[in-house]
Amino acid sequence: MSKFLISKYTGLEAYTPGEQPRDMEQFIKLNTNESPFPPSPGVISAITGEEIEKLRLYCDPDCILLSKKLADLYGVAPENIFLSNGSDDILNFVFMSFCGDEVKAAFPEISYGFYKVYAQLHQVDALQIPLREDFSIDFRDYCGLNRTIIIANPNAPTGMTLSIEEIEEIVKTNPDNLVVIDEAYVDFGAESAVKLTKIYSNLLVVQTFSKSRSMAGARLGFAIGPKEIIEDLNKIKYSTNPYNINRLTQAAACAAVDENDYYMEKCKIIMQNRDYTVKALENLGFKVVPSKANFIFVKSDKIDGEKLYLKLKDRKILIRHFSSEKISQYNRVTIGTEKQMQAFINAVEEILREV
Amino acid sequence: MSKFLISKYTGLEAYTPGEQPRDMEQFIKLNTNESPFPPSPGVISAITGEEIEKLRLYCDPDCILLSKKLADLYGVAPENIFLSNGSDDILNFVFMSFCGDEVKAAFPEISYGFYKVYAQLHQVDALQIPLREDFSIDFRDYCGLNRTIIIANPNAPTGMTLSIEEIEEIVKTNPDNLVVIDEAYVDFGAESAVKLTKIYSNLLVVQTFSKSRSMAGARLGFAIGPKEIIEDLNKIKYSTNPYNINRLTQAAACAAVDENDYYMEKCKIIMQNRDYTVKALENLGFKVVPSKANFIFVKSDKIDGEKLYLKLKDRKILIRHFSSEKISQYNRVTIGTEKQMQAFINAVEEILREV
Repeated sequence: MSKFLISKYTGLEAYTPGEQPRDMEQFIKLNTNESPFPPSPGVISAITGEEIEKLRLYCDPDCILLSKKLADLYGVAPENIFLSNGSDDILNFVFMSFCGDEVKAAFPEISYGFYKVYAQLHQVDALQIPLREDFSIDFRDYCGLNRTIIIANPNAPTGMTLSIEEIEEIVKTNPDNLVVIDEAYVDFGAESAVKLTKIYSNLLVVQTFSKSRSMAGARLGFAIGPKEIIEDLNKIKYSTNPYNINRLTQAAACAAVDENDYYMEKCKIIMQNRDYTVKALENLGFKVVPSKANFIFVKSDKIDGEKLYLKLKDRKILIRHFSSEKISQYNRVTIGTEKQMQAFINAVEEILREV
Repeated sequence: MSKFLISKYTGLEAYTPGEQPRDMEQFIKLNTNESPFPPSPGVISAITGEEIEKLRLYCDPDCILLSKKLADLYGVAPENIFLSNGSDDILNFVFMSFCGDEVKAAFPEISYGFYKVYAQLHQVDALQIPLREDFSIDFRDYCGLNRTIIIANPNAPTGMTLSIEEIEEIVKTNPDNLVVIDEAYVDFGAESAVKLTKIYSNLLVVQTFSKSRSMAGARLGFAIGPKEIIEDLNKIKYSTNPYNINRLTQAAACAAVDENDYYMEKCKIIMQNRDYTVKALENLGFKVVPSKANFIFVKSDKIDGEKLYLKLKDRKILIRHFSSEKISQYNRVTIGTEKQMQAFINAVEEILREV
């Protein structure tokens, strides 16, 4: 730390991203919820030599073409779409723009770890609401809260969901506060709240191309909501880094939206592989939290959470372990291809035989 | 604006990027200081189908390979390199991290327009120091200021430079304050302050791949400085959006650094075209501010600044006009290819004949 960092950030604890091992090719990587499938063929062919040559030019900061395509796909207008450099970027803007001295925040105590970082970064008083014993969110905890509410649905790292009716109840009972539903994992079996954004002026839905769209490395997130909220987000984007989505990502994403069926098909396969993995782990005595995401949250009474993580790592299989006390017995396992999940299950079986 | 935006941002005036016309191909685009040359051959070939397939995976948030290459190129260590999504992103972090209630800021009154936006965004008390009559910066205005100092060198939109000795004097006389030199345009004939970062613990140099590296659309900026300052910037990056440089940009930039000679050669051509344009405009009676950037700042007593801009736009030539009073008679003209500059000069001649 330098002596120049202003005091409000000196105690800041940054987010710790999942491991990205250098010798990644040697690993079965089930630790950062990436898709095991490549982007669709149109994405590969969209990035031509001619497109790469155009890197000399700035990208379109308004992402007009992509906004229009996404608007068509989701049945909203382009002015209801906000695009930014990954959904993290959007969540950062949410905490920055819609929380502060005047408006406190609330989110589940066990959820995407970045929410706590954003709250600390922007010095937001954030109520972290405990989950139920079974890791589910009780929607009633969020009704009439009078705080900006941020909920991941499906939640991470649990994979559990709220129903659309429960979300609507939260939105309805907080008419003077913004409700943000982080739908990073919605395409793996949960119901999206996008349709509610057409009815309620206090709902923003955030999604990403990193998971179901096989483009974690392209950095693209989007939000859907009432146009006034989208205007606010654009004001912040245009006051920080207007060109934050590069040309090739915009071209790739346009092609991906055109080939939406490809991705929905891949989501189905991942859901099937999830079913397979859940059953296999349950057969091995694991407790598996019911998940509608492309990951599952699991523990075994036979082996400590961290130990299982480390023993799998020895076998070149990476899963994600969180050390915070309430979940330290669990591991989060990304759902990959059938072959990857079989290898994972085989490795777990081996490890359990040893303990 | 929604009712949810917190009060400190309601009056915020966002940055206005240069025009990016939809029918861009029809224009000679001399308005946003892009390079007229495509990225080097290695960049085109670095973005293979295989690389595009890997978009499914997150990028390396530490950009280890690219940091190492840049460190080698600039004769520093990787821990002296910070990488982010364009130099705007870095400048935003600078105002956020190193200015605030405790530390006020200072920058030239006429300079990169985003500085004012960042100061407003982060509620930083910013002293805007007037330029001399001839648009030059008097370095003595910045000596012993006791503020975080941000200076573009070459300055924008003037193109004028401070000498390395003048910068050193500013750095020396502000030992307890950070001095940030924004070298977006340094490769077109100015002297870089990077070497001073090895001597002084209070100097940060910011550069970009958007201008001399022909990659405005790839979004990559970097900063070079003492490792404690780089650590601070990384703390902020890892608390906002750790993966903000996408995979393809990292691959492209690595290839670009390997082919540095290509870019330095193109810079020489741009400097030659600048000389040609300056002479031609001076022959037409223009006042041309002496520039070491890939743009020139010019005015004619024969035609109003905005009128010239509009008449060139009618002829499908875009230059940049700023409406703020002190510079409204001027236009900023990006230096393109020889052919583009000839077309520009011809158009200016025609326009002047008409007035």
